[in-house]
Amino acid sequence: MPQTITLSIDAMGGDNAPNMVVEGMDLALRDLPNVRFIVFGRSEQLVPLLEKHKRLSARIDLRHCDDVVSSEEKPGVALRSGRKSSMRKAIDAVGTHEADGVVSAGNTGALMAMAKFVLKTLPGIDRPAIASLLPNMKGESVMLDLGANIQCDAENLVQFAVMGEVYARNVLHIDKPSIGILNVGTEVLKGNDSVKQAAAILSETKLPIDFYGFVEGDDIGKGTVDVIVTDGFTGNVALKTVEGTAKLFAGALKQELMKSTLGKIGAFIAKPAIDSFRNRFDPRRYNGAMFLGLGGICIKSHGGTDGLGFCYAIKAAHELVTDQLNEGIKEDYARFSSEHHSMSLTTPED
Amino acid sequence: MPQTITLSIDAMGGDNAPNMVVEGMDLALRDLPNVRFIVFGRSEQLVPLLEKHKRLSARIDLRHCDDVVSSEEKPGVALRSGRKSSMRKAIDAVGTHEADGVVSAGNTGALMAMAKFVLKTLPGIDRPAIASLLPNMKGESVMLDLGANIQCDAENLVQFAVMGEVYARNVLHIDKPSIGILNVGTEVLKGNDSVKQAAAILSETKLPIDFYGFVEGDDIGKGTVDVIVTDGFTGNVALKTVEGTAKLFAGALKQELMKSTLGKIGAFIAKPAIDSFRNRFDPRRYNGAMFLGLGGICIKSHGGTDGLGFCYAIKAAHELVTDQLNEGIKEDYARFSSEHHSMSLTTPED
Repeated sequence: MPQTITLSIDAMGGDNAPNMVVEGMDLALRDLPNVRFIVFGRSEQLVPLLEKHKRLSARIDLRHCDDVVSSEEKPGVALRSGRKSSMRKAIDAVGTHEADGVVSAGNTGALMAMAKFVLKTLPGIDRPAIASLLPNMKGESVMLDLGANIQCDAENLVQFAVMGEVYARNVLHIDKPSIGILNVGTEVLKGNDSVKQAAAILSETKLPIDFYGFVEGDDIGKGTVDVIVTDGFTGNVALKTVEGTAKLFAGALKQELMKSTLGKIGAFIAKPAIDSFRNRFDPRRYNGAMFLGLGGICIKSHGGTDGLGFCYAIKAAHELVTDQLNEGIKEDYARFSSEHHSMSLTTPED
Repeated sequence: MPQTITLSIDAMGGDNAPNMVVEGMDLALRDLPNVRFIVFGRSEQLVPLLEKHKRLSARIDLRHCDDVVSSEEKPGVALRSGRKSSMRKAIDAVGTHEADGVVSAGNTGALMAMAKFVLKTLPGIDRPAIASLLPNMKGESVMLDLGANIQCDAENLVQFAVMGEVYARNVLHIDKPSIGILNVGTEVLKGNDSVKQAAAILSETKLPIDFYGFVEGDDIGKGTVDVIVTDGFTGNVALKTVEGTAKLFAGALKQELMKSTLGKIGAFIAKPAIDSFRNRFDPRRYNGAMFLGLGGICIKSHGGTDGLGFCYAIKAAHELVTDQLNEGIKEDYARFSSEHHSMSLTTPED
């Protein structure tokens, strides 16, 4: 029997909270028998919901909070005035080591600000990054940053590369993950200064990493590399572009099939195959963005997801805790950053 | 009978040139009876190919060039040393008004540098932009810039907005096209200074344009706006991300259908519907990126395309010439920029 893993849950974040949060916990419990939850939120809403889930209730420690961080709240304001909110209390539980990780579907900026304040960044990391898994032709890859850092210098990108590498090795269990920096086609212009300098540092480093070089937008779907490094602006746009294109395709395929009788019959016969296709790219399966570089596990669920999506966010947190990601990052980064630092000092500037 | 339109063609650009170029011209001629071509390239390669296409040969004026701009050539080098290349000669034909527009599948950076040098930018336009149509749930939208300008200030973005608006009105025939600036989710951080300032200018302008505000990556597929404005770095990544996701989906759907007998039978029965779906998103149909803001029509075909794709690039050039896009931009921009200029002067800075 594996050790019990305790996750603290912000029950009030997300469009369909707290219903979808309760559903998500219930679903997650089926596959994760060793998990228990500390749940923060309004008990008057949560108690009636939990009464319908007896098995789940037995694994929950409910902590009442009146305050909720709204989705419009600015990060700074939430940080100052949201000390008693369900989001903050859920993060605090990780800070006090009562919980092993936190999951919230609330306001991303507020969650990052609070998590950074409470959990601090790991030694050698200037800025945490938001990372997510993305499906591709070969399986999946991790992309970061997805919106925490709108403008990034070369050093930020190099740190993201190291965090992504450690994640891919420790959690995806890839022996020597390949790393690419997202850039525009080399034939036009070779990108901005940040990506050029970051590529130069990663190319010349003596760190035992597999730096592939630049990748382009279509390499995300191809699965050219295991880790895709980019600034938060480009990463956010690219991630949402993948999501939007996926929706467009799924919608248009259905539309075309339902237009004709033959289409409907064919779709009915091929239903298992089409379902398997849908399932493979179901965005809920990829829900649960990771805040990498913090002194604790923090997972951001998509605000608009449902119970199944939230369940996947819980599973992502569970996996990071199980694989002791932060221990990995801490050890590797300490080693990497000392080597990288000494390397930086000896590398001639160009 | 409509007036004859003359397009100059760089026959040597692209991975499968000149074969696919000749095929593309032949295909285009079927739908565009009023087109004729001035074709620049190596006659020893072109003559045998053209002998197979008698009808096409009658509509072609072949001009021999030995020189070819390679795909690795740097724009500056190509500009200085490529004066006798097929690409440059094809652009020159537009500069001398012998041709109404030029199409090339060659080196994007070299094509842009040469086109800018020969055709100049339109009055009031600092930097030309690369624009392309993209499919969405409602039809299609135009996105720019796609890689000509890696770093853009607010003024560049505002100019792109106006160029995109004029294109959507004159060529897509949308009465009052809506314009959005691509940004990250407002909940995290509200983007960089360029997008914030550009949005402020467009929000306050008295120009008769429909500025929607910020859009996110998933709005590309949704079709939230008719014109998506972005810097060349983000736009290039977003465009290629759409392409990569499209390929991933098409490939995975086929994979899932071919895995089982029922999948194969269903796919066979639904073939017309699936073909119609494929056709709707066939990237070749969207081939032909437009260089907007230049004193002449210049279309860049994807280098890796085939005859059908090159045919669509020719059609894109033909459409811009027919709809007299540049006349529209020139007139509108002269009006817009004088209004915008006087507006800028009276708007208090913040």
